[in-house]
This record gives sequence, C-alpha cells and structure tokens, in this order.
Amino acid sequence: MNKAVGVREWVIAEGYIPTESHGPKPEMLSHETVCVLNTSSKDAHIEITIYYPDREPVGPYKITVPAQRTRHVRFNDLADPEPIPRGKDFSSLIRSDVPVVAQHTRLDSRQAENALLSTVAYPSAA
Amino acid sequence: MNKAVGVREWVIAEGYIPTESHGPKPEMLSHETVCVLNTSSKDAHIEITIYYPDREPVGPYKITVPAQRTRHVRFNDLADPEPIPRGKDFSSLIRSDVPVVAQHTRLDSRQAENALLSTVAYPSAA
Amino acid sequence: MNKAVGVREWVIAEGYIPTESHGPKPEMLSHETVCVLNTSSKDAHIEITIYYPDREPVGPYKITVPAQRTRHVRFNDLADPEPIPRGKDFSSLIRSDVPVVAQHTRLDSRQAENALLSTVAYPSAA
Amino acid sequence: MNKAVGVREWVIAEGYIPTESHGPKPEMLSHETVCVLNTSSKDAHIEITIYYPDREPVGPYKITVPAQRTRHVRFNDLADPEPIPRGKDFSSLIRSDVPVVAQHTRLDSRQAENALLSTVAYPSAA
Repeated sequence: MNKAVGVREWVIAEGYIPTESHGPKPEMLSHETVCVLNTSSKDAHIEITIYYPDREPVGPYKITVPAQRTRHVRFNDLADPEPIPRGKDFSSLIRSDVPVVAQHTRLDSRQAENALLSTVAYPSAA
Repeated sequence: MNKAVGVREWVIAEGYIPTESHGPKPEMLSHETVCVLNTSSKDAHIEITIYYPDREPVGPYKITVPAQRTRHVRFNDLADPEPIPRGKDFSSLIRSDVPVVAQHTRLDSRQAENALLSTVAYPSAA
Repeated sequence: MNKAVGVREWVIAEGYIPTESHGPKPEMLSHETVCVLNTSSKDAHIEITIYYPDREPVGPYKITVPAQRTRHVRFNDLADPEPIPRGKDFSSLIRSDVPVVAQHTRLDSRQAENALLSTVAYPSAA
Repeated sequence: MNKAVGVREWVIAEGYIPTESHGPKPEMLSHETVCVLNTSSKDAHIEITIYYPDREPVGPYKITVPAQRTRHVRFNDLADPEPIPRGKDFSSLIRSDVPVVAQHTRLDSRQAENALLSTVAYPSAA
C-alpha cells in the first residue's frame, strides 16, 4: 500500500488566476489548483517554480505533502518568495524528492455561473 | 475484440464532491465520477483507495467491471467501508487485476448552471 | 510534413450524450465528440466500438479521415449499425490503420448556459 | 534550473474558435489557446501547422518562446500566413527546436456564462 506512485517532475503549462469572483468564499473564489498525491511512506518535499512571459522565473515555493496524504494547493495561496499576480499568464514546474501524481484544476467564477477545467499535469521525469 | 486494453493502476489526484446541487436528480446532482472500461474477456476486480489531507487512507472500495463492459462509478455512491465526505479534498488510487482504462469527470451544479471537467486518469503501472 | 503522428488505438472511457439542449443548433446542441487528426499521407480507416454497462459492445462504426485532414466526429451522428442511445453511459475504443491523434470533447447545454469538457484520449497502442 | 523539459512535437486534435462572445474583452472573448512553457536556456522556435476537414493544411505559423519563459498563444491572434476562420473545425501540430510543454485551453463565452476546457496536448515526439 505504501508504494510510491508517479514521477518526480510535473509541468502545468497553463496558469492564470482570475481577478474576480462570484459566490461564497472560499469554495467559489476563482482559483487555480494543483492537487498532489503522495502514496509513498516518506514525506514529499516539493519545489514549485513559476514561469512568466516577460520576467525571470520565481521560486522555489516550498510545500510538503506528508506520506500517504493528498494536498490540493491553491496557487492563490502561495506567498513566499512572493504572491502570484492575478490576471497574468504563468506556467509552473513542480519537482518532488519522492514520486507523486499531480493534477491541475481551475474554478473560474468571474461570471455569475462557475466554469471548471482539469487535466493531469505533464509528467516530465521519472 | 477481447484484447485487454489499458493498465492495472490509475491515479486521480483531484477529488471533491460538492455539497450542493441545482436541477433534477440524479442527472444534475453534483457528482465526481471515474469511468472504467474493461475490454478484456475477464471480469475486472477493482480496488479503490481514497487518500485525504489529514487522515489515514481509507479502503479498499471494491468494484467489479464485467468483461467487455464499461462502468461509470460515482464516488458519491461509494459506501463500504464508509461514505466519502462532501466538501472535502481527496485523491484516489485505482487498482485492477486486469488492464482497464480510467477517466475522471465531475459535474458541479452548485450554481444554477452546471460546470464540467474531465481528464484521462494518470496510468501509473502496466 | 506528411509524417504519420500518433498511434493506432485510442480509448475514451467516458461517454454520455445528454438528452436535452438549449440554444441554436447545431452549434449549441449537446454533443459528445472525438476529434481525429491524420497527418499522414494515407487515408485513415477507423473503426469505433461502443461499450455499454449492461449489454454486448456494438460496432464497428466505420469512419474515414482523409490524408492530411482532421475530422471532428459527433457520437450523436453515428447511425450504422445503430444510433447511440441518449442519456446512457458508454465508452469507446477507436482503432485506425494509420497513426492518428484523438481528443474527446463534450458540450453540455442541458441547462441555459453551456458547459465543456475535453481531454486527449488514452493512447493504448503504438 | 535551465534543463529543457518536455518534447519537440505536440498535437491538439480539437480546435474551434467560437464566433460569438459575451463579456468584457479581451479576457472574456471566446478564445482557443495553446500555452507553451520553455524551461531551457535557449529560445524555442516553434512552427504551428493547422489542419482542416476539407482543405490542405496551412502553415507554418512561426512563434518564439524565449528561454525560461512561458507564452499563452491565442489561435485567434494567428495572422500569417492567414487568420484561422471562426466557427470551423481544425487541429494543430506544434513543432519546436527545443523541448517544450504544451497545454490546450478554450474559453467559450457564446452564452452569457463562460465555459472552460483544458488538456495537456498529446506529446508525439521526443
């Protein structure tokens, strides 16, 4: 049951945090999320680097996903070394010291009714 | 025609069953689904383990997909060993004794108009 | 430019044609689509088999995608050997005699505002 | 940090630019996008070829994604050798001289509330 599943590097080429939201927060706040599953018996130490169209990459943002746990990380909440600007395009590179699985989801509530997207991230390295 | 297609292990890192719904049930009930196709000539015995952010994994939930059949499993309906809580983050690990293909879909009808997401799950083992 | 790109077998485990629609047809008719790209210099002869939860698979549905062309096939339009029932779960297995790329999209207009989902299909064979 | 991540060829079999939009532009303009991340230390020179159902492929459309940058390219904005027609089906083949990662997203605002889809593109060549 404690076997490590997945890979150590993932890419989400799409990234955008809408500037506006409708509906009750935090559930219906417009958000961009990466869901990370760590099935292994060791904690996963993860570093996220954010790429922009017009400036140097920023990071690493450090996150821990404990052994045998999932964590749904909102890009909205990343703060150190700096918050991710709203309404701007970005991409993210996710590296872990143990294999994990990553999936990308956005909830967009700029208009009165929410929209959703999701895709498994791109597994770029074993 | 009876060749087994797919792999024996799949991961859905995203998981969330909305607490509210609008519209006629069961079609428009907010739901989280894994669709499993078994093209082989043997029944597929599947075990789903659910991972949480803050407690031990729960499972296995046992499901059978008969030979040459598809089954669209709603996480909402899983009951044994215990129902999956609404409004909480989770991930799922899906293991089968014969190769299958798994795809993840959510219908979110918390607001008046529904939203959809879907992605092929992550195939983690042959 | 005429190199064949992709693989010869694809799976879409999710499948569902909503029974109702809102908005002008055919654009806003609820539909389930597989988009197939054939970059090769030969026509692709494609056979689609439909799997159900509770009956034998049906097919093949035969489709041609000419050399160097794309074709967005609506499952709604498949008629021979029989139409696909509305409001029922299904999966599809797509086989081609030349490599192609397949992507799955649904437009759901059961409620007043449409919802969309899409994912690259699962490439199950070279 | 400057390692090249991804592959040199990607396919998006789905493609469609809606003819109508609701809401403030440019954010809520209906659009079809490919997001490209270049983590390498060299600029990526990218050529996009567009495939149609009923005519010869058109291209290449040439795009540069600088080293260590992301670029979210709207198909709506491609103009040379010719604009992509609205309301028509297409597919795209994306080739780069350095490895990149590509993800496909559509925002559809034909009706009053927007819908979203996204999927990692199909990586067809190392």
